[in-house]
Amino acid sequence: MRVEIWTDINCPFCYIGKSRFEQALDAFPHKAEVEVVHRSFELDPSAAKGETGLVVPHIAQKYGISEAQAAANEQGLGRQAQALGLPYLTEGRDYGNSFDLHRLLHLAQDKGVQDAMIDALYRGNFAEQDSVFADEEHVVRLAVAAGLDEAEVRAVLADPDRYAEEVRADEREAAELGATGVPFFVLDRKFGVSGAQPAEVFTQALTQAWDSRSPLTVIDSADGGDACGPDGCAVPQA
Amino acid sequence: MRVEIWTDINCPFCYIGKSRFEQALDAFPHKAEVEVVHRSFELDPSAAKGETGLVVPHIAQKYGISEAQAAANEQGLGRQAQALGLPYLTEGRDYGNSFDLHRLLHLAQDKGVQDAMIDALYRGNFAEQDSVFADEEHVVRLAVAAGLDEAEVRAVLADPDRYAEEVRADEREAAELGATGVPFFVLDRKFGVSGAQPAEVFTQALTQAWDSRSPLTVIDSADGGDACGPDGCAVPQA
Repeated sequence: MRVEIWTDINCPFCYIGKSRFEQALDAFPHKAEVEVVHRSFELDPSAAKGETGLVVPHIAQKYGISEAQAAANEQGLGRQAQALGLPYLTEGRDYGNSFDLHRLLHLAQDKGVQDAMIDALYRGNFAEQDSVFADEEHVVRLAVAAGLDEAEVRAVLADPDRYAEEVRADEREAAELGATGVPFFVLDRKFGVSGAQPAEVFTQALTQAWDSRSPLTVIDSADGGDACGPDGCAVPQA
Repeated sequence: MRVEIWTDINCPFCYIGKSRFEQALDAFPHKAEVEVVHRSFELDPSAAKGETGLVVPHIAQKYGISEAQAAANEQGLGRQAQALGLPYLTEGRDYGNSFDLHRLLHLAQDKGVQDAMIDALYRGNFAEQDSVFADEEHVVRLAVAAGLDEAEVRAVLADPDRYAEEVRADEREAAELGATGVPFFVLDRKFGVSGAQPAEVFTQALTQAWDSRSPLTVIDSADGGDACGPDGCAVPQA
């Protein structure tokens, strides 16, 4: 079974939702047969590369709420994170363009360390003072700690085309699947869960997806296809 | 869309079937959105590790056919391969236990070079004189040429537990999906194609699987899940 999770590094509910999903997954009896893939979604693709600033005034201005309200939101997020044992910097977190971070997540997927990389980026963004949007050296350190090769990380960062198409393909797929926000969880391309739901909702989704696995529809030709089995290979007619 | 292909390195129809599938995939208009994963299936898990011998007398003895018939089968396979432009050694090919090769295919998957690795192993087994079952140095050379790190390859070969569970999980899944032989192609866990079918059958399967992609069933909670979208994040109630 496969779970795909569309996320953005800018998205606090993605950080929180991943942890709640993992609570459910850890207790799921078929965990060993569940594969998790992280997919790209940019909350604000229009943010200029390298542009950054503090989240609280940015959010207040962008969505027309008071800075006090925006700051209170951060405190609320901090409490939700804390309840899950996740560190959260309720003051001083910044925002920025996440395209390059998504490209690195695709590199990490190719190298088998995607989960470690997304955890590193979440921690870097939500729990550490250094910026993952404006401080490339910080990103390189996080990537190396997640298991990536430093030279490869720098090569991908230096070439804006590397993994760009993979990021955009993820974003197109999110739109096709009906996602308008993140986190967005898709199980075997049959079930969808939107948002940082309670762990019980993820348990229900995992169970329902598992139980709904159905026999395959077989597509065949008149002659059948030659195959090999425990009793040998079909004998091709010369 | 995802295509999983269960195969064994011992299986000539897997080598041939992969090429026919790729003909269909190359012409498929949504190729860029198709992900291919190779999964493990051992045709003869009882073969002792390192035991090997020539295929023709082995097949003749095992399945009670004459050596002449077994040799004619190899010639027939050679012609099928040749028609696809695939090199094939119709004399002198050997057989053996493929468990370690499957473990390496899982390492290659983790490193993003699984397709190159399976092609290298097929060529090594079906088109080259050196054995992939009895000559570990040959396997190491093939793996390095496919893009793997030599030290990692040797470490995996030296530790029989590395990726063993992944191989067995693939085999359990094959059984659950109803596969009794290989190659066995599974599209989005909905459609199955057994055997080295003509390319048109793969085209039909790809088209049918693509057209049958359906809207997700949404699993939700009473409160909904907090999410972030282009218009900002849900405001957690303090």
